[in-house]
Amino acid sequence: MENKIYLGTAYYPEHWDASDWEHNSALMNEGGLNFVRMAEFAWSKLEPAEGQYDFKWLDRAIDLCRRHNIEVMLCTPTAAPPPWMLHRHPDIVPVDINGRKMSATSTRHCYCPNSPAYQEYARRITVAMTEHYKHNDTVMAWQIDNEFGSSVRLSETCYCEHCAREFRKWLKSRYLTLDALNDAWGTIFSSNTYSSWEEILPPDRTVMTTPDPAHALDYRRFISDSYITFQNVQLQVIREISPGRPVTHNLAGDPIDYFNLFKDLDFAGWDNYPSFRTPSAPHLASANHDACRGYKNKNFWILEQQTKGQMHFLEPGYLRLYTYQGIGRGADLVCYFRWRLCRFGREQLRSGIIDWSGNTTRRYEEVKQTGAELQKISSELIGSACRAEAGILTSFDIRSAFDIQKNHMYMGTPVDYPRLMADFFYRPLFDRNISTDILNLQTCNLDCYKLILAPFLYLLDARSAARLKDYVRKGGILVSSVLSGYKDWNNNMISEALPGALTDLTGCTIKESNSFYHDPELNRVLLKVPGYPETESPATVWGELLHPGKAEVVGRYSTNFFKGDPAVTLNRYGKGCVLHIGTVLSNEAHDQLIDWAVHLSGIKTIESPDNVEISCRYKDAYKYVFILNHNETEKTVNVGGLYRDLLAGTESDQPIQVKGLDVRIIKMDV
Amino acid sequence: MENKIYLGTAYYPEHWDASDWEHNSALMNEGGLNFVRMAEFAWSKLEPAEGQYDFKWLDRAIDLCRRHNIEVMLCTPTAAPPPWMLHRHPDIVPVDINGRKMSATSTRHCYCPNSPAYQEYARRITVAMTEHYKHNDTVMAWQIDNEFGSSVRLSETCYCEHCAREFRKWLKSRYLTLDALNDAWGTIFSSNTYSSWEEILPPDRTVMTTPDPAHALDYRRFISDSYITFQNVQLQVIREISPGRPVTHNLAGDPIDYFNLFKDLDFAGWDNYPSFRTPSAPHLASANHDACRGYKNKNFWILEQQTKGQMHFLEPGYLRLYTYQGIGRGADLVCYFRWRLCRFGREQLRSGIIDWSGNTTRRYEEVKQTGAELQKISSELIGSACRAEAGILTSFDIRSAFDIQKNHMYMGTPVDYPRLMADFFYRPLFDRNISTDILNLQTCNLDCYKLILAPFLYLLDARSAARLKDYVRKGGILVSSVLSGYKDWNNNMISEALPGALTDLTGCTIKESNSFYHDPELNRVLLKVPGYPETESPATVWGELLHPGKAEVVGRYSTNFFKGDPAVTLNRYGKGCVLHIGTVLSNEAHDQLIDWAVHLSGIKTIESPDNVEISCRYKDAYKYVFILNHNETEKTVNVGGLYRDLLAGTESDQPIQVKGLDVRIIKMDV
Amino acid sequence: MENKIYLGTAYYPEHWDASDWEHNSALMNEGGLNFVRMAEFAWSKLEPAEGQYDFKWLDRAIDLCRRHNIEVMLCTPTAAPPPWMLHRHPDIVPVDINGRKMSATSTRHCYCPNSPAYQEYARRITVAMTEHYKHNDTVMAWQIDNEFGSSVRLSETCYCEHCAREFRKWLKSRYLTLDALNDAWGTIFSSNTYSSWEEILPPDRTVMTTPDPAHALDYRRFISDSYITFQNVQLQVIREISPGRPVTHNLAGDPIDYFNLFKDLDFAGWDNYPSFRTPSAPHLASANHDACRGYKNKNFWILEQQTKGQMHFLEPGYLRLYTYQGIGRGADLVCYFRWRLCRFGREQLRSGIIDWSGNTTRRYEEVKQTGAELQKISSELIGSACRAEAGILTSFDIRSAFDIQKNHMYMGTPVDYPRLMADFFYRPLFDRNISTDILNLQTCNLDCYKLILAPFLYLLDARSAARLKDYVRKGGILVSSVLSGYKDWNNNMISEALPGALTDLTGCTIKESNSFYHDPELNRVLLKVPGYPETESPATVWGELLHPGKAEVVGRYSTNFFKGDPAVTLNRYGKGCVLHIGTVLSNEAHDQLIDWAVHLSGIKTIESPDNVEISCRYKDAYKYVFILNHNETEKTVNVGGLYRDLLAGTESDQPIQVKGLDVRIIKMDV
Repeated sequence: MENKIYLGTAYYPEHWDASDWEHNSALMNEGGLNFVRMAEFAWSKLEPAEGQYDFKWLDRAIDLCRRHNIEVMLCTPTAAPPPWMLHRHPDIVPVDINGRKMSATSTRHCYCPNSPAYQEYARRITVAMTEHYKHNDTVMAWQIDNEFGSSVRLSETCYCEHCAREFRKWLKSRYLTLDALNDAWGTIFSSNTYSSWEEILPPDRTVMTTPDPAHALDYRRFISDSYITFQNVQLQVIREISPGRPVTHNLAGDPIDYFNLFKDLDFAGWDNYPSFRTPSAPHLASANHDACRGYKNKNFWILEQQTKGQMHFLEPGYLRLYTYQGIGRGADLVCYFRWRLCRFGREQLRSGIIDWSGNTTRRYEEVKQTGAELQKISSELIGSACRAEAGILTSFDIRSAFDIQKNHMYMGTPVDYPRLMADFFYRPLFDRNISTDILNLQTCNLDCYKLILAPFLYLLDARSAARLKDYVRKGGILVSSVLSGYKDWNNNMISEALPGALTDLTGCTIKESNSFYHDPELNRVLLKVPGYPETESPATVWGELLHPGKAEVVGRYSTNFFKGDPAVTLNRYGKGCVLHIGTVLSNEAHDQLIDWAVHLSGIKTIESPDNVEISCRYKDAYKYVFILNHNETEKTVNVGGLYRDLLAGTESDQPIQVKGLDVRIIKMDV
Repeated sequence: MENKIYLGTAYYPEHWDASDWEHNSALMNEGGLNFVRMAEFAWSKLEPAEGQYDFKWLDRAIDLCRRHNIEVMLCTPTAAPPPWMLHRHPDIVPVDINGRKMSATSTRHCYCPNSPAYQEYARRITVAMTEHYKHNDTVMAWQIDNEFGSSVRLSETCYCEHCAREFRKWLKSRYLTLDALNDAWGTIFSSNTYSSWEEILPPDRTVMTTPDPAHALDYRRFISDSYITFQNVQLQVIREISPGRPVTHNLAGDPIDYFNLFKDLDFAGWDNYPSFRTPSAPHLASANHDACRGYKNKNFWILEQQTKGQMHFLEPGYLRLYTYQGIGRGADLVCYFRWRLCRFGREQLRSGIIDWSGNTTRRYEEVKQTGAELQKISSELIGSACRAEAGILTSFDIRSAFDIQKNHMYMGTPVDYPRLMADFFYRPLFDRNISTDILNLQTCNLDCYKLILAPFLYLLDARSAARLKDYVRKGGILVSSVLSGYKDWNNNMISEALPGALTDLTGCTIKESNSFYHDPELNRVLLKVPGYPETESPATVWGELLHPGKAEVVGRYSTNFFKGDPAVTLNRYGKGCVLHIGTVLSNEAHDQLIDWAVHLSGIKTIESPDNVEISCRYKDAYKYVFILNHNETEKTVNVGGLYRDLLAGTESDQPIQVKGLDVRIIKMDV
Repeated sequence: MENKIYLGTAYYPEHWDASDWEHNSALMNEGGLNFVRMAEFAWSKLEPAEGQYDFKWLDRAIDLCRRHNIEVMLCTPTAAPPPWMLHRHPDIVPVDINGRKMSATSTRHCYCPNSPAYQEYARRITVAMTEHYKHNDTVMAWQIDNEFGSSVRLSETCYCEHCAREFRKWLKSRYLTLDALNDAWGTIFSSNTYSSWEEILPPDRTVMTTPDPAHALDYRRFISDSYITFQNVQLQVIREISPGRPVTHNLAGDPIDYFNLFKDLDFAGWDNYPSFRTPSAPHLASANHDACRGYKNKNFWILEQQTKGQMHFLEPGYLRLYTYQGIGRGADLVCYFRWRLCRFGREQLRSGIIDWSGNTTRRYEEVKQTGAELQKISSELIGSACRAEAGILTSFDIRSAFDIQKNHMYMGTPVDYPRLMADFFYRPLFDRNISTDILNLQTCNLDCYKLILAPFLYLLDARSAARLKDYVRKGGILVSSVLSGYKDWNNNMISEALPGALTDLTGCTIKESNSFYHDPELNRVLLKVPGYPETESPATVWGELLHPGKAEVVGRYSTNFFKGDPAVTLNRYGKGCVLHIGTVLSNEAHDQLIDWAVHLSGIKTIESPDNVEISCRYKDAYKYVFILNHNETEKTVNVGGLYRDLLAGTESDQPIQVKGLDVRIIKMDV
């Protein structure tokens, strides 16, 4: 790969007449695109019959790209098995959580990752592709499969005989003895103490509609590991036959443990569809960018970027804005989805740059502008990276634990861990333009951060707790939240007083803890944050009645029989301190509390008007500041110093006017 | 059959003690009923054991009818197989879309239409019945089966092995080669290019929750054809053994292709339950009457007419009003459902004329009044028929296409093709008392119409497009709508610029097209229709940003980034013109636009107060005008000329007072 | 068992380290608890391998209880089979209504009650337990299984081959001949006249989504009987081996016929979770207490009493209040659920007295107060019982009939029989502090009641009707309601005029009857009750247009075409009279009507402020009056006479001040 910012598109030449291909490659080049991603759903075209490979059409498509200066990222086509394969090996077809064998109708993700037959077919096509393309210089990278688990939500992923067998193996290697497993799962609870491994089954079709939490969490871990194992078969082939080319995968929102999935890959990648379902708030995409950067703690790739509205028209400017939002947060490659709107299949009215007819569109013009701009500034940006002094701790296991048990709420809204984290913890930092890393609770290095937010540590292991203590002791500022420290890593409640390992850090014990499911407006908290105006806020989702040992009380409940009981506390611990928020408050209250924590941490914020996002990449003695105006009207930002406007090519020290939905990228001394 | 208006009732003597029968037949006759429909769920009574037929009870019931001057429509009983049959041939029992083999508990529609065993049993009972009754003069017509597919919604109809096998045969005869099928379905999209016919399965239990649109549409066509094939087995027997008696079937709202289903039958029939679910607007029943008349382009039958409220009391007057509403739109036979409220089974609290006890009711009195009136005017009305200068184009395939893909909307309300058509296109004509034919897009003759509404031609084939051009070229007025011309007949997007074949006709291309799913109040259109007041309307459902070539702009968006973009246009084409409505507007806006189109077409409207419906039947030099007051208060209608009030037996040229929920039928010169 | 009020807790020592047990037993004793319930989910601990029993741990737990003066109720552990058993006998695992074989993952209620293998295993463990404990004096009672059918709702209970086979046997013994069954079920309705027993199947996976009502009702009766048969296997063993100890079961809300289930047991028991789903109104728990007392017409047991909030914090005071609410209505034993919050399994955040950590809580302190109080008054209360002059008739079959058919409403809220009865008939009596018995329609003795409410007798058999007539003839006051007398005991409509057997009693016939599903605000009734102010009320759910023969009209519809038609009537019959309410009115209207009926019956009411509940137990010449203040503020009650305050130990004749959520128990002369 060259050392540059890559801007490209997902391309399916096989959907169109070969006579169109040259024209399309030329159009891409004119549009400023420098790569395409190809072949991820082309297995039946690449291997029309078992063992008969046909790369001619792909050779030609790649060659036309090459002639128009477009590099190629190739995908292994294993996301969609060909019909002949399913017909011959029906055991590849997954079984859902209802025990329903799915149809052997070939379609995306119609496979069980634990099927030995499928693993072998996947290995063979990967060998064939890598052998064929190992010397082709136009091929610059590999993507393995496509969006593992996005069609079959992970919780509903396969429950077939292969999975049951492999699950038992996985459990044996994790627990070694049945006694250890019975202990870890708490099988004594409902008389299901196992007396032989063969008795253990996947947690589907259980009579009780909610399965045992420990059992269900281990199955999710196992399924996540199954995809990683499935990926590694291909990865080894690529490493061996096509070495030197980076390998990636495009995640799509499902709770695989992406820290693990990307560990052995070269780049983390994700698919960004901001307006896919609801009008998206700007911080949600940025939270995902930061998360993706965090999976490998380095610059990342956007492997699909939405180009067309789904539920409403996408306004002019957004496509470019989304592109720079990603780059500003560390993306070095952006791949639009997709080159041309699709004529058939499920996605006929979905995303695409040019029309079904092949005509260009306003979307194409916007891509072209962006492409031209990026060519101008690519060499400046490349090699630059984000830096953060704030971090948010996260965990796949915690996400799964919340998802599995939904806090015993049988009606209404369960605790939505990713959304609560994004809205009540990430967003206040985002609004203050504080660069934030999304970190793996169990493995991250906390030393380089001034501020750590640790919301909803529902599961907490001893080593993570010890690292948190060490961090605060040395002077770190920690924000903790309700529903933290309750459970061990098996997804069972701890047998110490709550919040268990967080008791010392927060300086509190929890007298009582309960859902606020009924009437969220019923309970309120009065905040008295030093230096801020008194604020009253609703208390929602879940509430803790705190017993502050040595912690100082910052907020108290002002309603119900627990009126006066502490809800928010601050505890000095070692050289640092811990702000504990024992319920979920309003946006405004979280703004105030996290602003205070930022202030305590000494992190400097960058002021900007509402909905003007500022992010930075750093290289040598310079920083590249991305100013993104998410408003439809012009806004002014004062960066306080001499700067060079990279797109305009001008220098100034004056306040910067940014038009509605426009972007400015400026270069300044650090 | 005699030459008269038939008024009768569905009758189940087998539910009651034989000693009651004579009394009931007498009551019917007193109530003015002249026929009954019998035997459609009586198979286990007619063939209590395999091959042992028992017609004695039915002979007696028919004979009692005869003696009381009541004719009999007999049904083949194949809508409900007897238990002994399912027990012996479990393969008759259908498999649902979830792969679930249904229970062999005998019940309505518990059969797969593709089961060879069931087809043979159906043939045999039809032979037995027709042989037995071929010389019985009281039997005046045959109905085959009952409401094909109404219990198992068509989309959830059988997915068993018989269906899979027959589906493959059906596909072979349609496509001849696998290449043609792969092409037509666009199987390249997700790697499901078929390499043998055996690989093709029904579109159930697919891993992606929405199946491929082309695959799914062909399966619906196949299932529709399966019912037609199943019907034809019986039809051939009846034609051969019991010739000369008309044959019908009663449709019940599910998307079988009724144009095809009724092709070989003598009368189209439908089941009218206006208050079955929600309080029904008057235009909905009339839209269905007109549709039913359209299936064979001739007078039709109402084979079940609701007589009792379901979710609320049915007010006195409605039963009679519904009856005349049907007759006014071309019904020559109305069969009330059912004679007597049912004591057992699922429908105990549903429709019926007399009570469970056998006592008469106010419903009986209303029937009696209607029956007496019809006897008086039957000979006038018989032979008269509706005439229409306006038509609305419709298609089973389009309905299925919308139903299958719901326009890629993953949440909320999908595009409801029949309802949008009824409310936004049919209703404005209905409110103007314009007689309207519902036409088959692909086969109808357009020449005799002055105005054609062609809403939502989502799929459009070249021949239909050519016929539309021809129609307008010669001077026709055409109203087209959003979401038209997008797809080919395989349910795939076209590869030309939208609206494809409609580009010339509308004089427009579509710059961009998108769902308005989010916030329907967000977008608006300002209409400037010549001769009408300026109107602003919300734009909902879906929006097209039009690029008018030679078309003149009638309405423009007044919101969002596409403010000023054309939304409604008028294009002169040949001697006619095309009004294109590129989104869905308010009722008021549609009223204005369609009023304008009516005006352009030269069709004369008949004025009436709100909710007073006027329909006409014509014979020789006369017309019979049905004035139906759907209001609860008296209204006045001016028919402008000398008329004879058929029910009152008076002549006048004065305005006509019609009481609340009352009906007037007048005879005038054409 | 000793002669005292029992206060205890469900205890799972097997969940915790054995070193904790002694401490916990001591804590219980300090907390005033005098018994524990153990072992109901401990099968895999008691029989870790087939035929190998291990009672040592339980012996020790019981011995520790004994040493701390705590008696033990032992449960047979058959609510949760061990994994080894399911692995060896997969046919034990139930099949759900969708034909889905559940997972053999051991969990609560993972068994089919008709499985012969399971019945035998259940018998053997019961033999082993009773043999082992027959001479242990600490064991004071037995509970069989746990909450039959609460995990698998009865309607979704097993549909396996065992069930199908036993269902046929059950039907044969009920109907003797197929003709009788065909008749009773009305199989003629949809051609499903059975010609052999083998053709009959459970009513699952039927093509029509609602099964035939008679078929479905018999299946529910059969399943209810299946649980009773399953219970009796264990009961016989206990009676034989461990005679003299009372045997109970804890019901949990599902429609088993509890009158039958408890017939052979010594005490009826139920599980009281008042805030489990929604904030509970006080009358709902009391209605359940009264129902439970009614199952055996004697004092009853509360076998699980919720101790911790589920969806919101449970305010201090409620735990004690709930305890006395039960005792005041006849509970002689209250078992809190559960001793200690659970660390693993599904119920980690649910109910418990002490914390996961083993620390005591405010809940423990409240238990302790209650325990100390009860020790003081136990000997006073024991032997006292409730007395009622009012009764409400109820029936498992009617409840099932409503549940099965939901009155043919295909959308929206069905008729909720238990809730309508509780809110519109029980609550007005409750608000007037009228002690009420909940009676079995078919078997109860009516002679001792002055007032009988008989709402929603949707099914009515001739003998029950005759008993009602006899009751009123002798001078009883009867309140009947809409939807009564419609059906025979097979769940089919009667063939006489409605309300059939109630016609004489009500002095009315029903001209017409219909759902008021649409727009419940549309219809109204004007009440003119002698001696009460005129009241207008909405009429909802269902409406009858009455034709009063000799009945006098009390309320008439004031809307719609039936304006003026009678809706509420009073009929003198013999020496008594019948108030018929032909629709569902407002709370206020029902208050007025039932107040009037109370007045007519001569029952004396006890006045109390809103939400202050008063109940009485009687012994010899004394009554014990429980005054329960469900308000959060102090209220005053005047009992009008000299009384002794049992908890305070004082005497007085002054009005009694009761603090918010507080309880007073006073002793008075009768």
